[in-house]
Amino acid sequence: MNIPDIYKNTFFILVLILILLFNSALIMPQTIKQEPVKIEEYNKIAQVIVETALRERKGYKYLSELCEYGPRLSGSENSMKAINWAYEKMKSLGFDKVWLQPVMVPHWERGEAESCTILDLNKELSTLALGGSISTPVEGITSEMIEVKTFEELEKRKDEVKGKIVFFSRALDQGKVNTFSGYGGAVNQRVNGAIEAAKYGAVAVVIRSITTKHDNVPHTGVMDYNDTIPKIPAAALGNIDADFLNNELKRNPHLKINLKLSCKTLPDAQSYNVIGEITGTEFPDEIVLVGGHFDSWDVGCGAHDNGAGCIQTMEVLDLIKRLEIKTKRTLRCVFFINEENGVRGATEYANYADTSAQTHLAVLESDRGAFTPIGFYAETDSIEILERLQSWLTILEKANIEWVRKGGSGVDVQKIKNAQLHLGYVPDDQRYMDYHHSANDVFEEVHPREFELGAAAITIMAYLLSEEGL
Amino acid sequence: MNIPDIYKNTFFILVLILILLFNSALIMPQTIKQEPVKIEEYNKIAQVIVETALRERKGYKYLSELCEYGPRLSGSENSMKAINWAYEKMKSLGFDKVWLQPVMVPHWERGEAESCTILDLNKELSTLALGGSISTPVEGITSEMIEVKTFEELEKRKDEVKGKIVFFSRALDQGKVNTFSGYGGAVNQRVNGAIEAAKYGAVAVVIRSITTKHDNVPHTGVMDYNDTIPKIPAAALGNIDADFLNNELKRNPHLKINLKLSCKTLPDAQSYNVIGEITGTEFPDEIVLVGGHFDSWDVGCGAHDNGAGCIQTMEVLDLIKRLEIKTKRTLRCVFFINEENGVRGATEYANYADTSAQTHLAVLESDRGAFTPIGFYAETDSIEILERLQSWLTILEKANIEWVRKGGSGVDVQKIKNAQLHLGYVPDDQRYMDYHHSANDVFEEVHPREFELGAAAITIMAYLLSEEGL
Repeated sequence: MNIPDIYKNTFFILVLILILLFNSALIMPQTIKQEPVKIEEYNKIAQVIVETALRERKGYKYLSELCEYGPRLSGSENSMKAINWAYEKMKSLGFDKVWLQPVMVPHWERGEAESCTILDLNKELSTLALGGSISTPVEGITSEMIEVKTFEELEKRKDEVKGKIVFFSRALDQGKVNTFSGYGGAVNQRVNGAIEAAKYGAVAVVIRSITTKHDNVPHTGVMDYNDTIPKIPAAALGNIDADFLNNELKRNPHLKINLKLSCKTLPDAQSYNVIGEITGTEFPDEIVLVGGHFDSWDVGCGAHDNGAGCIQTMEVLDLIKRLEIKTKRTLRCVFFINEENGVRGATEYANYADTSAQTHLAVLESDRGAFTPIGFYAETDSIEILERLQSWLTILEKANIEWVRKGGSGVDVQKIKNAQLHLGYVPDDQRYMDYHHSANDVFEEVHPREFELGAAAITIMAYLLSEEGL
Repeated sequence: MNIPDIYKNTFFILVLILILLFNSALIMPQTIKQEPVKIEEYNKIAQVIVETALRERKGYKYLSELCEYGPRLSGSENSMKAINWAYEKMKSLGFDKVWLQPVMVPHWERGEAESCTILDLNKELSTLALGGSISTPVEGITSEMIEVKTFEELEKRKDEVKGKIVFFSRALDQGKVNTFSGYGGAVNQRVNGAIEAAKYGAVAVVIRSITTKHDNVPHTGVMDYNDTIPKIPAAALGNIDADFLNNELKRNPHLKINLKLSCKTLPDAQSYNVIGEITGTEFPDEIVLVGGHFDSWDVGCGAHDNGAGCIQTMEVLDLIKRLEIKTKRTLRCVFFINEENGVRGATEYANYADTSAQTHLAVLESDRGAFTPIGFYAETDSIEILERLQSWLTILEKANIEWVRKGGSGVDVQKIKNAQLHLGYVPDDQRYMDYHHSANDVFEEVHPREFELGAAAITIMAYLLSEEGL
């Protein structure tokens, strides 16, 4: 190659570079950044949404009404009263359509008698049956105990298990910054503990409550049995009593424990999802769904888990309505029943949604408590969609949203396979596990500003999805 | 220009572009990104700091000990007991140097009698003198009231003010997402209300408490007088009673109010800043200072404001010590006395620091409550420093830090003029004003995980500043 050729080639290289640079600007993900007027309008609307939510606190008041009914375990009388309240409330708020979607749900009751006693010390421990547990005989099960931290340890000591009550004492690891990670690291004891212990002949199981709080309030939650292994009763102990038991067992490994549970599983019960919507003005058959599960465990009043998540998404529609905002697409709010012990409501809704002529553009779940908003998880592999949502952060940040990241949406909305986008609302999680599945989960522990800021964040996201599409 | 010339020129343009691209990589702000081994080491240390803080909760225990002493108003007996405790605690933690820096502080006491009564209704309102107020006569001041929302309204109605008690009833605007903004929008009533009202002949002032909480707990805070206008007594009312009074005044604008305060300002008292340090191994005369104000108002126990901020910064040194981390620079923790009503401690320390042979590389304040960490404010115009700090976010995020932004540091560290960098630790603020300056600010309202995560965040920042410099 002679010198002029080098010059000629570099000329083309330069042209190529310029074309590439120009193109990369053109193929940027589609955002609303190119339309300053629209951004300005969205910013104004977002601002009004945030201020109205924070000043009027209507959702917070609705949540206080809901919490008056007490906990809402699937199949319970309370749950039906609450469903009725929600149906009437959505109608009274003037949504365009409100309806109940029937679904049969499991019906488990913990019963009256519930105790775990160290007979040698005549010391009763703070106890709560796990959700789905069978009962003990009326006089209870009396036995020695074997304490293990993990299934691996259980397997190693399997020869000692027969005839005993297994005590799974592993605590939630407080060292994890994300409390859901801490929870995830301990929850197998609750979900599969009875199966694993019964494999080796255990007669019952108790676990240390999975909680971030150092108190003595036991935390329940769902547990599994399978058909090939005997079913044994299972309960959770308060954290402080779990410490106590751990200490006493070190002194005397032959302590006699009596566990009494009177749980029963009744026939499946009739229940309902509660659904309300504001019909879109341009694309009424394109749905932006917001929702959460309406059932709770049978202690506390399911304020954070998940009355708050439901009421926040109802407030999305209520705010849009109160502020007389017209949305292009249909905003639909769904209170799914039975997430805690069956996910029947979400399954039923998904069957309907996935075979409907309507399109579910986006489905967004709120089920991580009513704390200060941080972000949204988008359950997508599409970089383009993720970047598109991220381009809205300048608007979403008005409600304290710091980020949109790839991540899990929620157990209920995940069921809707044909939805184009699954989203999960993410608030701060430091306090969530203090309340989760326990008598601690009461209305008084919900902070009005944190709750309302979450409602505002979800409203802005739903509104942008409705107006901008994907 | 002929064609070969174009080719030739474009060759040089290309070379120029390449040189520029290469150079721009070289002149990137100095970060630690180029040194993967160091980053890995920092990440490991950050991880251990976070896990240790969250699992061991030592700072949280120290805070519980401190809160046993009750509130710590400058000059009070409690404050001296707490100073002594802090000094002994730092020594017991094995810091390399611990000392007290003497400083004279204002000494104001609210006294025993404190009431605001609607005589017509024989209704006593929840009342708290503002910090620095003079007393009323023993029998109190009895007068009609004029309610205004703003100084502008007061000015317009100035002819009605003479001989009356002015009621400043403007509430904190809940519509602001940032509660410090809401506070900022209402606090002039408290700080300057007595001056403005006395200008027009008012005999006393009461204000609606500046709070985000809808309860009846009054919130105090500093107020000003000036020498040219008569001093009149001033107090805050609980939010609920402020509503009540507002309603009653609508019914009967001629209600007679009796205000009784027995506050007094005593001679200045001897007090101290408490200072501890771990001496740097390479640059002992370069200081990374972390601290906060140790005094509090005289109700509650100053848990969030600012026992927590102090103890978090003490835990910075304690964590470094416990984890046997050696730091290049000296880490110094300062508990400044008297931020609430004089800033004398910080002024004294700044006089010392700004004339010392030692260099204050960075001074970091924690005084926004012990809630979940979000970020750090850097009070700097240097884009380079800001980008440098931001390049550490991949490490800081282990303690939940989302951002480093330009913003205010803190009232105390701002006094240190010669410091190269002023930083403020920023946690979530949604609940802060519920507690601020009131009997609500107790240890029980501090969440151990939120507190400890904050301590970890500040520790990581201080450590990086020590190792990397600016």
